[in-house]
Amino acid sequence: MSAALEDPMTTPFLQCLIGRIRAEDQYGAWDRKSDTDLLKDYLMTKAERRLIPIIGDPDPETLDRVEKFHQAVGLTVERLTGIIATPMMKMSHEGFGRVVLIAGKLVVYAKTLRDVHRFGFEDLAALAAEGMKATSQAVAEIEAHPELARA
Amino acid sequence: MSAALEDPMTTPFLQCLIGRIRAEDQYGAWDRKSDTDLLKDYLMTKAERRLIPIIGDPDPETLDRVEKFHQAVGLTVERLTGIIATPMMKMSHEGFGRVVLIAGKLVVYAKTLRDVHRFGFEDLAALAAEGMKATSQAVAEIEAHPELARA
Repeated sequence: MSAALEDPMTTPFLQCLIGRIRAEDQYGAWDRKSDTDLLKDYLMTKAERRLIPIIGDPDPETLDRVEKFHQAVGLTVERLTGIIATPMMKMSHEGFGRVVLIAGKLVVYAKTLRDVHRFGFEDLAALAAEGMKATSQAVAEIEAHPELARA
Repeated sequence: MSAALEDPMTTPFLQCLIGRIRAEDQYGAWDRKSDTDLLKDYLMTKAERRLIPIIGDPDPETLDRVEKFHQAVGLTVERLTGIIATPMMKMSHEGFGRVVLIAGKLVVYAKTLRDVHRFGFEDLAALAAEGMKATSQAVAEIEAHPELARA
């Protein structure tokens, strides 16, 4: 079966992201919410994106979503390698910034953030693919320098 | 001459810190301020520290000073090695947090931050010593893994 036909909900990344989101539901308010419902905030169709100004400041909810996305990458990395990767994010102005994932003394993933106020994915498959791509890059770095990642 | 007798103002770290502070003075408002005057905000005597509550949230000015301190460490590292080290800081609550300095794919310095609302040094010698200590650690990491620091 090709990757495109796989159910994105079964990818380790989306499972970790759902777990990360549910971890904040201390009072069980989302118990009846389905996993796909919880991920709706991560989705943005092209039509929706067109309605958002090109330049803008991201609101705290959007920043929180971007952070959780990268925390979920870190958790997926841990699931696959046993080594946890912690995100650090630095935002400057108008949705520009940088995010890194750190394992021990190693930067396992680094990305320049742009247009964070328009952060969102076309569908669950795109969200899962992006998370798994970041995970693969981080795992490859850990495999290249395991002693530093464990430092 | 022992290190203790050296003038702290001639250390590369304090020179970089002063440069970093003056870089924000776009309109020359601080032209007549002496270098030692500019560093006064970094100093806190034991008596002053005693007046600050043990638990508290750091104000934006204090966070900015902590960030500039680590930017100056990064600049000092660059002056000594030719490789720039960029700080990333993550604050949680009540002045707890973490700061790292990153060069390429290498974490050259990492520190847990505590009681950031009480950030300050007894005198210029203590400030210079702390900055040079962090710089030395970062330089040692770069020398141990130069290929990653340049990645």
